[in-house]
Amino acid sequence: MSRYPKPMARLIEELTRLPGIGPKTAQRLSFFLIGLPRSDVHSIAEAIVEAKERTRLCSQCFHLTEEDPCPICSDPKRDHTFLCVVEQPRDVIALERTRSFNGIYHVLHGAISPLEGVGPEELKIKELVARLGPDVKEVLLATDPNVEGEATAMYLARLLKPIGVRVTRMAHGMPVGSDLEYVDEVTLSKALEGRREL
Amino acid sequence: MSRYPKPMARLIEELTRLPGIGPKTAQRLSFFLIGLPRSDVHSIAEAIVEAKERTRLCSQCFHLTEEDPCPICSDPKRDHTFLCVVEQPRDVIALERTRSFNGIYHVLHGAISPLEGVGPEELKIKELVARLGPDVKEVLLATDPNVEGEATAMYLARLLKPIGVRVTRMAHGMPVGSDLEYVDEVTLSKALEGRREL
Repeated sequence: MSRYPKPMARLIEELTRLPGIGPKTAQRLSFFLIGLPRSDVHSIAEAIVEAKERTRLCSQCFHLTEEDPCPICSDPKRDHTFLCVVEQPRDVIALERTRSFNGIYHVLHGAISPLEGVGPEELKIKELVARLGPDVKEVLLATDPNVEGEATAMYLARLLKPIGVRVTRMAHGMPVGSDLEYVDEVTLSKALEGRREL
Repeated sequence: MSRYPKPMARLIEELTRLPGIGPKTAQRLSFFLIGLPRSDVHSIAEAIVEAKERTRLCSQCFHLTEEDPCPICSDPKRDHTFLCVVEQPRDVIALERTRSFNGIYHVLHGAISPLEGVGPEELKIKELVARLGPDVKEVLLATDPNVEGEATAMYLARLLKPIGVRVTRMAHGMPVGSDLEYVDEVTLSKALEGRREL
């Protein structure tokens, strides 16, 4: 006999699979959820399903979006000659928050990491090269300023410079070893301004 | 224009309402959830709804249960003459985990707290008194060993002793000021053994 009613035991188990949620937190969350009004519980469950069902990747930049192409790629007021390469969708969110960048993005969905078995072919690099027509004047490499991010930037610089496009890297205003998404907005803005030629 | 796709912004907002989950954690969880396979996402959403829909309160002891009466109340092998009064369903779970208690429970769903406006009538005390037929020989008051829990135990002792039932309190093996659910199992077992007459 389980100590929890079966549906609750299942909920606790499901919640424990989420990152940063251990058994104690899962138990607390379960008690909280069961104590909420029915409509709130349905609202949360629906939000989870809807977020999954209605969010996809933009076929151009691979950012998360509801419509394809995404609002950034389809915005004529953005500078489509200036392309910023990032590792993750959350990096796009962080850069948009600065209001300092008016170009468009390309999301790699990772960084090169031999230790984790992630090579260039696992990332959206083929797709990046395919986007580089004569319209694109500059590619800003905004991968994370850590080992994997730097390696990815070096790899891309070597790949893209022969094509004749201007390749830049974020200025090292950002703390080394950190995650792009956690850098404060002013520092991110400085890093954008001080980008350097590779 | 929201920085997140709308369904994701909504999910982040819903998650932020959960206890202990701030905007950063909500954002992380959202990205994680969107990255999961569809079937896993549906499984989590379903577990939340099912836990709410299929869990109710036992009409006898007011513990959370799938069937009414709950498996503990309907178990003939349990000692129905020995009734343990706790504040919350999670306290039942904690006591069951010790395997040291073979009686039945009564969940008050709170403790008397004038500061928070919780009086005896907000708790399942009427229902407790109604259960005390001649069959019940002992009532063990296992409310939390903090101010509200002690006050509730004193209130109940004064109410129940005139009825002629034996009223006991958990031994103070438990650290004072703590929550019952976090006390380790050995300490809880000791507290059960050392319960004292009031």
